[in-house]
Amino acid sequence: MQSNRLRVAIDMDEVIADALAAQRLWYRDTHGYIWTDDELRGRKLENLADPEHAKGMEKLLHAGDFFADLDVMPGAQEALKELSQNFDIFITTAAMEYPASCAPKFHWLKQNFPFISPLNIVFCGHKSILAADYLIDDNVRHFRNFQGQGVLFSALHNQTVEWSPRVNDWQEAVSYLTAQRLAGNP
Amino acid sequence: MQSNRLRVAIDMDEVIADALAAQRLWYRDTHGYIWTDDELRGRKLENLADPEHAKGMEKLLHAGDFFADLDVMPGAQEALKELSQNFDIFITTAAMEYPASCAPKFHWLKQNFPFISPLNIVFCGHKSILAADYLIDDNVRHFRNFQGQGVLFSALHNQTVEWSPRVNDWQEAVSYLTAQRLAGNP
Repeated sequence: MQSNRLRVAIDMDEVIADALAAQRLWYRDTHGYIWTDDELRGRKLENLADPEHAKGMEKLLHAGDFFADLDVMPGAQEALKELSQNFDIFITTAAMEYPASCAPKFHWLKQNFPFISPLNIVFCGHKSILAADYLIDDNVRHFRNFQGQGVLFSALHNQTVEWSPRVNDWQEAVSYLTAQRLAGNP
Repeated sequence: MQSNRLRVAIDMDEVIADALAAQRLWYRDTHGYIWTDDELRGRKLENLADPEHAKGMEKLLHAGDFFADLDVMPGAQEALKELSQNFDIFITTAAMEYPASCAPKFHWLKQNFPFISPLNIVFCGHKSILAADYLIDDNVRHFRNFQGQGVLFSALHNQTVEWSPRVNDWQEAVSYLTAQRLAGNP
């Protein structure tokens, strides 16, 4: 690890792993209903769904295997490979609500991001514990008390959240970080 | 979480969880030999043992369940309870070499340190990613590039390592941290 490089912490669900798509599929297969983008804009599926259904989804997430088979978010592999050349990349995911997700998440990363060292994977709760220059995440609550710059990664649920900087996809994320690096920030 | 308090990151194996005792027991039961303190001083069991036996032990650690049933290190519970009153305590363990250990370690913490929030548990590789004022660990390699002060927790294997500050048990660790806090360090 080269400690003079900028360090970027990157969340998993809805940032590099398409957890929402899998939740929607599960909902369709289990309850026969397909949630639309319009319905999900500004809200989380678990808060929209019937409480009994939400409980079932919570159980699914607790079982852990849900995380084994998620699709990679568009452009994430190429982006992280490119960023790895100039930044130290850490994958930092809030796994402590679903401790059984750790092993499946670990194997998913090994499979889909083999160029990220396992030593650069962090399963945590509070992300304020991370010593990084940037944190790319879809939940602004993780930026609270984070010592670096939080970068909001757009997701349907955070469309109504005010935060700057916001990036809409991996291409924008790479552009933003590259511009920061070239400007000598932070 | 009160962010104005000093933050202490604390390792698990050989710091709050007696992994060595369990490794010795496994060795005795599997290979009929009891390693003495004298043999283990300044060295790690996996480097001393016959390579075939070391491989077996590696397999045991990879299975994960080994970590489910470790004894708590003497005084650790009382010490962490006391420290929790004045510091933010994070449990920060290098679990990425043994990803299957995450769930057993999580449950072990829940059982033995129920007063530590799951959100304050961190499973990582490189500990340089931790934003903390102090890191109590039995391996000095984790202090490299750590932004705070590394505090070496004595273990047989690190007896010959030069590092200051070193604490020999949990009573000394509490004394050291309390003195630092009262002195306004860092």
